Amino acid sequence: MNSPFPAKPRIAIVGAGALGTYYGALLAKSGHDVHFLARTGRAALLARGIRIKTPSARIHVRKVQAYGATEEIGPCDLVIVALKATANDQLRRLLPPLLHENTVVLTLQNGLGVEEPVAEVVGAARTAGAICYIGATRTAPGVVECLFPGLMAIGEFGRAKDERTQAIVALFNRAGVKCEAHDNLEEQRWRKLVWNVPFNGIAIAAGGITTDLIMADEGLRALARRLMEEIVDAAAKFGHVIPRSFVELQFERTAKIGRYRPSSLIDCEEGREVEIEEIWGEPVRRAKSVGAAVPRLEMLYWLIRHKLAARKPAKRRR
Amino acid sequence: MNSPFPAKPRIAIVGAGALGTYYGALLAKSGHDVHFLARTGRAALLARGIRIKTPSARIHVRKVQAYGATEEIGPCDLVIVALKATANDQLRRLLPPLLHENTVVLTLQNGLGVEEPVAEVVGAARTAGAICYIGATRTAPGVVECLFPGLMAIGEFGRAKDERTQAIVALFNRAGVKCEAHDNLEEQRWRKLVWNVPFNGIAIAAGGITTDLIMADEGLRALARRLMEEIVDAAAKFGHVIPRSFVELQFERTAKIGRYRPSSLIDCEEGREVEIEEIWGEPVRRAKSVGAAVPRLEMLYWLIRHKLAARKPAKRRR
Repeated sequence: MNSPFPAKPRIAIVGAGALGTYYGALLAKSGHDVHFLARTGRAALLARGIRIKTPSARIHVRKVQAYGATEEIGPCDLVIVALKATANDQLRRLLPPLLHENTVVLTLQNGLGVEEPVAEVVGAARTAGAICYIGATRTAPGVVECLFPGLMAIGEFGRAKDERTQAIVALFNRAGVKCEAHDNLEEQRWRKLVWNVPFNGIAIAAGGITTDLIMADEGLRALARRLMEEIVDAAAKFGHVIPRSFVELQFERTAKIGRYRPSSLIDCEEGREVEIEEIWGEPVRRAKSVGAAVPRLEMLYWLIRHKLAARKPAKRRR
Repeated sequence: MNSPFPAKPRIAIVGAGALGTYYGALLAKSGHDVHFLARTGRAALLARGIRIKTPSARIHVRKVQAYGATEEIGPCDLVIVALKATANDQLRRLLPPLLHENTVVLTLQNGLGVEEPVAEVVGAARTAGAICYIGATRTAPGVVECLFPGLMAIGEFGRAKDERTQAIVALFNRAGVKCEAHDNLEEQRWRKLVWNVPFNGIAIAAGGITTDLIMADEGLRALARRLMEEIVDAAAKFGHVIPRSFVELQFERTAKIGRYRPSSLIDCEEGREVEIEEIWGEPVRRAKSVGAAVPRLEMLYWLIRHKLAARKPAKRRR
């Protein structure tokens, strides 16, 4: 960790779903040397590049460096893990070819317990995490529609931010991604759960509904609030102070979004895997490990887990 | 209440769904003067009578007295309310023509708060209630399939059993319905909720599943247990002591039943109204009124209520 983060880093994007494609394209567009691992979508990326549509811009990256294996990419300074967490058993195979002594591996995954599988392979010192507040959908390989490009919160795994964190944040900011460095990555993860747990969860458990319907139903809206309070109380047991005003802010923002299909609902309805353990299971286990009462969160976890287990076999993901 | 219950009572059955048809037929078969209110099914009852199939017997009542309005029936000694609770707003119109001074009105409805709408019309002194442990389905007007003919628990509304209760119990017992008089009707209602709340509720909330799947899923089975414990604890606040062994008994019995579609799930899937308020809503309100914590019960209520409200308009019931 002693050598500074390079000004012109070599970057690998592991996984070319919505987030990997979006952030990778912005980094490439700002002049960086970006290499995508994209197995099934590789031919499309090589042939047609990447097209990003945001509410305010259209971005086209014509020449994309895409590969079918991380061995073909080789060591990088920054590795961005944009696989879904349900594929983390592949990290042990995918990451080693991308590493040198000072590689930073930044995971963009949702939920709790997502840095740990990275750290197991590359060590805690090389591991960082980002929480992405963004609404983006990959409509085809290399084609991403970004409904709202939000903030990215970056932190180090198990320790405070440092110069390296700031360098990565600067990299993203220069690429047009609003980004902030945080001292407490874990707290940022709990904060994101305050929205994700109730809205992704109720959307699935109530039978596949959009956020506006949750907001419009007195009972479901109250349930969302109780779930948020359980998350806030559990986070407090770990020393993370999330003010009640943060809960109110979630409701204000959700009211403004209107009709919105949370990402887990989209995954669920399209037969893709859902990050059940990271968003609901791990928070339940951590909360209970410190004696925090999370009856509704646990019930939501059980209902969703059964519902997803009972689906027809999921399509194979990339 | 001073004149004794007559040995040869005139009986009205209000509502010819599964329970009304089943109990009415058994009472008629044992020689009683039974009058059915059956609007859409009336022609079938008059033309073909009633056929009941149980695991051990087939019963055919050839000549059925069926009417389209309670005015045509006139005063009875025993009125059995076998409408679904969601139709209780009709009682104010349906019951008065059936009453004399000593009429007993016995409601067979599920859940909490079902005697009150009867008592509002006929007075508390004439009101009684029965909890029916039975699995019966009306497959066509006048045709009932009874999967398991269980116990009937009868009690008076707001007071202990008396000679009248015993007379009604004897009437049912002679008709082949296993029946017991209880001093505390309300406690019996809470006891029935111990099974109905979790199994009817989870069957709907988890996406339309049978009881064997709830029993086979570790999380859902644990959820059923927590819900039962919430009911037991709430009942205790009202002075109803339901031993923990009763909870265990529910699991043993449910394991034996195997693959079973709870009645609320059937109603839900066939587009009929579900007794949401009586089975989930009223228990939530009563529990909260005495400070009992029922987080899971309330969450189940909210999820089911939304799910049912979001259905296409229900078929009109009889």
